[in-house]
Amino acid sequence: MPRARISHQTAMEETTMTNPRPKTPTLDRVACPADLKALTDRELATLATELRAEVISAVSETGGHLGSSLGVVELTVAIHAVFNTPFDKLVWDVGHQCYPHKVLTERRDRIRTLRQKGGLSGFTKRSESIYDPFGAAHSSTSISAALGFATARDLGGPTGDAIAVIGDGSISAGMAYEAMNNAGSEKRRLFVILNDNEMSIAPPTGAMSTYLSDLASSGPLYALKELAEGVERSLPGPLREGAQRARNLVTGEHGSSATLFEELGFDYIGPIDGHDIPQLLQVLRAARAKASGPVLIHACTVKGKGYSPAELSDDCYHGVAKFDVATGKQQKSAPNAPAYTKVFGATLTAEAERDSRICAVTAAMPGGTGVNIMGKRFPGRVFDVGIAEQHAVTFAAGLAAGGMKPFCAIYSSFLQRGYDQVVHDVALQKLPVRFAIDRAGLVGADGPTHAGAYDIAYLSNLPNMTVMAAADEAELVHMVATAAAYDDGPIAFRYPRGEGVGIEMPERGSLLEIGKGRIIREGGSVAILSLGAHLSECLKAAEDLEARGIGVTIADARFAKPLDTDLIAQLTANHEALITVEQGAEGGFGAMVLHWLARTGRLDGTLKIRTMTLPDRFIDQASPADMYHDAGLTARHIAGQVLHLMGAETALLEATTA
Amino acid sequence: MPRARISHQTAMEETTMTNPRPKTPTLDRVACPADLKALTDRELATLATELRAEVISAVSETGGHLGSSLGVVELTVAIHAVFNTPFDKLVWDVGHQCYPHKVLTERRDRIRTLRQKGGLSGFTKRSESIYDPFGAAHSSTSISAALGFATARDLGGPTGDAIAVIGDGSISAGMAYEAMNNAGSEKRRLFVILNDNEMSIAPPTGAMSTYLSDLASSGPLYALKELAEGVERSLPGPLREGAQRARNLVTGEHGSSATLFEELGFDYIGPIDGHDIPQLLQVLRAARAKASGPVLIHACTVKGKGYSPAELSDDCYHGVAKFDVATGKQQKSAPNAPAYTKVFGATLTAEAERDSRICAVTAAMPGGTGVNIMGKRFPGRVFDVGIAEQHAVTFAAGLAAGGMKPFCAIYSSFLQRGYDQVVHDVALQKLPVRFAIDRAGLVGADGPTHAGAYDIAYLSNLPNMTVMAAADEAELVHMVATAAAYDDGPIAFRYPRGEGVGIEMPERGSLLEIGKGRIIREGGSVAILSLGAHLSECLKAAEDLEARGIGVTIADARFAKPLDTDLIAQLTANHEALITVEQGAEGGFGAMVLHWLARTGRLDGTLKIRTMTLPDRFIDQASPADMYHDAGLTARHIAGQVLHLMGAETALLEATTA
Repeated sequence: MPRARISHQTAMEETTMTNPRPKTPTLDRVACPADLKALTDRELATLATELRAEVISAVSETGGHLGSSLGVVELTVAIHAVFNTPFDKLVWDVGHQCYPHKVLTERRDRIRTLRQKGGLSGFTKRSESIYDPFGAAHSSTSISAALGFATARDLGGPTGDAIAVIGDGSISAGMAYEAMNNAGSEKRRLFVILNDNEMSIAPPTGAMSTYLSDLASSGPLYALKELAEGVERSLPGPLREGAQRARNLVTGEHGSSATLFEELGFDYIGPIDGHDIPQLLQVLRAARAKASGPVLIHACTVKGKGYSPAELSDDCYHGVAKFDVATGKQQKSAPNAPAYTKVFGATLTAEAERDSRICAVTAAMPGGTGVNIMGKRFPGRVFDVGIAEQHAVTFAAGLAAGGMKPFCAIYSSFLQRGYDQVVHDVALQKLPVRFAIDRAGLVGADGPTHAGAYDIAYLSNLPNMTVMAAADEAELVHMVATAAAYDDGPIAFRYPRGEGVGIEMPERGSLLEIGKGRIIREGGSVAILSLGAHLSECLKAAEDLEARGIGVTIADARFAKPLDTDLIAQLTANHEALITVEQGAEGGFGAMVLHWLARTGRLDGTLKIRTMTLPDRFIDQASPADMYHDAGLTARHIAGQVLHLMGAETALLEATTA
Repeated sequence: MPRARISHQTAMEETTMTNPRPKTPTLDRVACPADLKALTDRELATLATELRAEVISAVSETGGHLGSSLGVVELTVAIHAVFNTPFDKLVWDVGHQCYPHKVLTERRDRIRTLRQKGGLSGFTKRSESIYDPFGAAHSSTSISAALGFATARDLGGPTGDAIAVIGDGSISAGMAYEAMNNAGSEKRRLFVILNDNEMSIAPPTGAMSTYLSDLASSGPLYALKELAEGVERSLPGPLREGAQRARNLVTGEHGSSATLFEELGFDYIGPIDGHDIPQLLQVLRAARAKASGPVLIHACTVKGKGYSPAELSDDCYHGVAKFDVATGKQQKSAPNAPAYTKVFGATLTAEAERDSRICAVTAAMPGGTGVNIMGKRFPGRVFDVGIAEQHAVTFAAGLAAGGMKPFCAIYSSFLQRGYDQVVHDVALQKLPVRFAIDRAGLVGADGPTHAGAYDIAYLSNLPNMTVMAAADEAELVHMVATAAAYDDGPIAFRYPRGEGVGIEMPERGSLLEIGKGRIIREGGSVAILSLGAHLSECLKAAEDLEARGIGVTIADARFAKPLDTDLIAQLTANHEALITVEQGAEGGFGAMVLHWLARTGRLDGTLKIRTMTLPDRFIDQASPADMYHDAGLTARHIAGQVLHLMGAETALLEATTA
């Protein structure tokens, strides 16, 4: 994929704030990581200070994941100073924290295009740079990938060392544990740097988190045997003594006196100060020189480090809008309509008031999913299980089997992590787990990794499953109510990121009839059957067509499963053509409609049918509207499809879709 | 779901071996678990002996998962004697080991129908018994489910204690770790019994396995503080002293001297002898009386215990055919054709001879997937990562990014565990991971949990992905060769469980043209486009039709993605009707064909089209042929569909499909 190049000018024009650019004389001398080798340790410390200022300045113009990036500035400098990227493979877990890395790795000229259309990705991305050997965005993949590189190296591949940098939130996921379990027994040389900031997106949860806090607060415990003395020598006197004592302690028997990481076969070094450049350099150099197997370096950092508005905020500026550097004040536009997430959270809370069996499960996203709203009112019925989607789904299945009414609230793309559990533990057992699927469809700045493109497809072909999609925020209210009342098996409802359409909101949700859609407007020879939030685009298309004197029928399917076969039969009987529209990939709603039409012989005649879905490619980040435009899925495209099916003259078609 | 009842007669008629039935006077007094309360501890030990004999006798007639079940006979007796099932919820992980549990829980009268059509499931199953509160078959779900029950109880649900029994293989999966991490911080009363037999299906791998071995060999380390003295008193003198010493040791500081389970917030008891009924009863009773939070009881057992042919075999009789009890000799019928698994393993090994970049990844199934064949020749290039499908996929992605050619061999239904990694780490990055997908389609005795129903659907709508399905074992050889040579992105090939069709095998695989199918026979007004191993059923249908003077065209698509659109265009241009056939659910190959036909306007005319897929329900265990019959997907059904589309008279249709 060619590198997308955009000038600073473009990004700047979109920014109304004018923050002064920081002075960065040392950073200006660094064109690529190799240039770090020419700097003294003292200069590297200065570089870190300038790099932090540069990141703050850039994100003030673009918005983005500031807190994580500020927390790893020193780590980034130290790793690139000690290791030889890109021959050595540096894998950042999740990638939220990669902005300083991007500045140092030949992307400083584009750093002010972060997360913008045509600009740099907000995550690491293989197609963007040779310094990103493995892209990320979902959590906890880095150790697996790094072990793959280390293994490839040992088999003769063109790779040096492999270094994974993973947060304390991410390391609590099962996938990271699977990778450590494997790496610990493979015994290959591998570096895992645990970036312990005691924060996930929300404060982390789970026993591992408590364990890491205990480790961190216990002072230096241990270092790789060969380099223990060196590290101890570098410590201030009182700490040095403690470290020696601790090191003696851990020479005890395996299994009874080692850290959890050592029990998994890693050498453990830490905890060390992740903002102390001299200490980081010393530890990394020693580890690089001496390690023969897997090493875990436990570095304690502060999310938002070095920028007081971030350090002082609740979420450490995990994700921010554009902001004023001097004050930290974010430039947030006033909402036009309630956000779907908040509508879900508030409606769920209201339903939970009425039914004590309702509870909620989130995988480390209480705020992102809106279940924190219910958590404030009913803390005992809201469960944050950590970054653990597999467990979240089956835990919810256990709650359902135990007589509760669990709402399992997970973003569409993250529910992919719990897919087998949805099939095997929920659908097969017909357990009434309610899946609240936020971030369905294209999501904007987070780009293709976070696109909720597949849930309709991967849920709608599961026996026993019911699948709804909300056309607007009022529909979401009804769907939460319907899911709360429905006890005959699993039920899912999906809704997009961002604001609703501004429709009037009901006092309380009504129970929707299962498997029944609704007709929104009637007319003409073409019917559009929409599933979910693209109904607004369908309506825009209808208005556009109406202005040209063309009528069109629009229906909202509400359910991808069970299909409203009466409605579909009616639409196909009364129209020459049917268009399905959904915010999802092929194999989903449109496919289910096609299967049913084929099975019942309704395709044998001259009915024309088109399925409008996301295309067969990943869509790069932009605004959701721009992404849907890129995807060929806007009101204009829908109107064009209607005209095409009506056999409209090419001229008319051109005029309309221009 | 109604209970399926089948008389012993039916199952017995299918058995040719006549093993004498064991005498079981104590077991005969036990109709349900409540009857165990009336037995003395000594009688419980006798019961265990009889129960073991009964399980051996039953499985000798049915075949099944014998080794695991023999290993937990005493555990099963002790748990049911101490806890109050079904009010207390006993969750067996995987369920391979549930046969003695089924005998004790009102299913003894049907135990000789295990895994047969209409008989008992080979796993736990909610619809089968109230003593199975949570079904299983895929591994590592039990702690999540049990925590769900425990939480529901604490919220007022109708549940007593929750007990998960999980093997040392299963506990090494990420999902189990996620659940422990959550349970350890939730602090609810919960029992996890670690059934440590140092065996997964294959010997377990990974650092956790080594750690457990170390723990087990270290002698009694520790017991829940409140019951430590009691347990210690029960130990022989020398062990008692060691236990006390160990207990003193672990009163040290948290994080530096506890077991891994304690570091995760559990009380740890063990290791104890899982075949010693008095010790089991004492520990379980004490734990039940005293526990306030999560407790892990580490019981060491022997897979295949008490039946010497099992204990002495390599896989401890993990899965056996019907056998002679006296000798252990299994009744295995001679194969008619090579098994797909072996063809894959042998072909992969041959390709690996020619290309040193080829390597293989398995998630704890070296034998099941056939990569053990390559492992014998190239041990350094075959990686068993443990029960860890998430890691397996991303590790393979890392290998690919590092320049290797990884074949990631995972059963269709287990690959569901790595779905997000396929999307996010492989497809999105267009990394050339080769997915060898065994057990595609319906699999027989393992039933619906193991059905490979969804892979075509969940892979074919992913950008960058190539998806093949082998029509026979020779095709599989070509597909392995094609995948080995293809380096432009991920590629998957699926093939069924069991034997091939007996076709002549090529010396060496040929490279298939990507996205190109083949026409097998031509004639008539109806075309059948088959994907995968159901080609043989399509050919049978064609022969049946030919005998009636009806011609039919048959094509093998080979690729679900990219579609051979030239072939489909040709078939639809030259025929009045097209039928797609696949061993998979809706949303897969047929859906992709429908989408393309719709998009290109080919459905606008009078083309008739039908998609034959698995139906929208889970199919219970039987032979694969019986399951496909149940699914409406056999040669007879295909021929019936052809006749129907030809407008054949009802009489003819009836005659043909009767």
